[in-house]
Amino acid sequence: MSGASLAVSTVIFALRSSGRFGEDGGERGLWLPLVRRIREPYEGRWALPGGPLGESEGLAEAATSTLAKTTGLAPRYLEQLYAFGDPERSGEQAGSAGKPAASGDRVVSVVYWALVGDDEARAARIGQNVRWFPADDLPALAFDHELIVEYALWRLRNKVEYSRIASAFLGATFTLAQLREVYEAVLGRTLDPANFRRQIEASGVLEDTGEVLTGVRHRPPRLYRYNQAVDLADQGPLGRLAQK
Amino acid sequence: MSGASLAVSTVIFALRSSGRFGEDGGERGLWLPLVRRIREPYEGRWALPGGPLGESEGLAEAATSTLAKTTGLAPRYLEQLYAFGDPERSGEQAGSAGKPAASGDRVVSVVYWALVGDDEARAARIGQNVRWFPADDLPALAFDHELIVEYALWRLRNKVEYSRIASAFLGATFTLAQLREVYEAVLGRTLDPANFRRQIEASGVLEDTGEVLTGVRHRPPRLYRYNQAVDLADQGPLGRLAQK
Repeated sequence: MSGASLAVSTVIFALRSSGRFGEDGGERGLWLPLVRRIREPYEGRWALPGGPLGESEGLAEAATSTLAKTTGLAPRYLEQLYAFGDPERSGEQAGSAGKPAASGDRVVSVVYWALVGDDEARAARIGQNVRWFPADDLPALAFDHELIVEYALWRLRNKVEYSRIASAFLGATFTLAQLREVYEAVLGRTLDPANFRRQIEASGVLEDTGEVLTGVRHRPPRLYRYNQAVDLADQGPLGRLAQK
Repeated sequence: MSGASLAVSTVIFALRSSGRFGEDGGERGLWLPLVRRIREPYEGRWALPGGPLGESEGLAEAATSTLAKTTGLAPRYLEQLYAFGDPERSGEQAGSAGKPAASGDRVVSVVYWALVGDDEARAARIGQNVRWFPADDLPALAFDHELIVEYALWRLRNKVEYSRIASAFLGATFTLAQLREVYEAVLGRTLDPANFRRQIEASGVLEDTGEVLTGVRHRPPRLYRYNQAVDLADQGPLGRLAQK
């Protein structure tokens, strides 16, 4: 019926300190796991984790299963990014001396993006041929995966400003400094603490839990949570429609 | 390789006066063309126009070709909406006495949404088994197409407020009253003219062309255009990345 086969891939973001993944110290940044390809085309190159869609598998289910196989993690946040279907995208490597891909090889990829929490990512079981890379220092990727990662980063950067997704990195309660750190890592720039506090407080998206961070003796900072009464673009309308 | 076949469908919106499509008079509202199914499952029901993806066809190209076949029109605006892939979505009609669909029948639909201009829609050649319906008074649809239309309406309503897509209904220049009429039709509610003017002027998204609407003798209204220097979410980052 169709001239294309279907795959589901996932861009997985974790927020980690710089230096070697899994070690503390340094500023925090975005990291993502990639899988080294063990066959042509693009053998030896790094690619987004993913695979063909199983017969009775939902799209989000396939993305979740990829995440589990690659990192041993469950997503804190998962959203469909885009379907990529350029007829040239699955072909041979540009400039490669290899055989051109057969015409039946065109793959349409439905791509998801996922956020995983710090603690989980730290304890993640890493699959074979999998390695974590900093999002701002990726190797050359297979297929059109550089474009896909760039799009996923754009979506994440936009979405952190008009949704509650930062809590996927933080848990349910957090200090303003912790939230600002997430924004800084996602946006890739430092933010003025006083301005950040003013803007966040004016937006009404947070509520004070009445509690403070424990283990801090002098002026322990307040803990906040996202205000669930505010209508934000968390999961798009499909989440909302599904709850009807 | 994959347990699913792939189709591309398109939700096509035109802005038309109420009453019979193609006639003038009454308030303007959103209309969309549907195709009556001539085979099972859901034979006789109305469905979104679409079809299987051709072997060397891009996804947006397939959506454009569906639009041309259904209405004879080229889109003024076209954007990918979502990929729908629930394993149950392509199966037999709920409560139908017909045979269950074979397990190989699962279809993943990559859905686009398109806007077409008034004048074009008025002159549209309508394909066989095609009819235009008001978006707020649709018949029962095949498959999960009601969910898809609901999502497309949600996306359109959101996007009209933070993009230039209203100009797809209006052309390059328009009066504030014409723009307000588009907002009212899309949002499905009347807007206070003075408030609308204040908010639009404060947003900085419009610029005064220095011209006025011709054919109006007393106080002809000014013509505006969208300010291209303002960064709006018109085509998502993929449009932007493609221009690099």
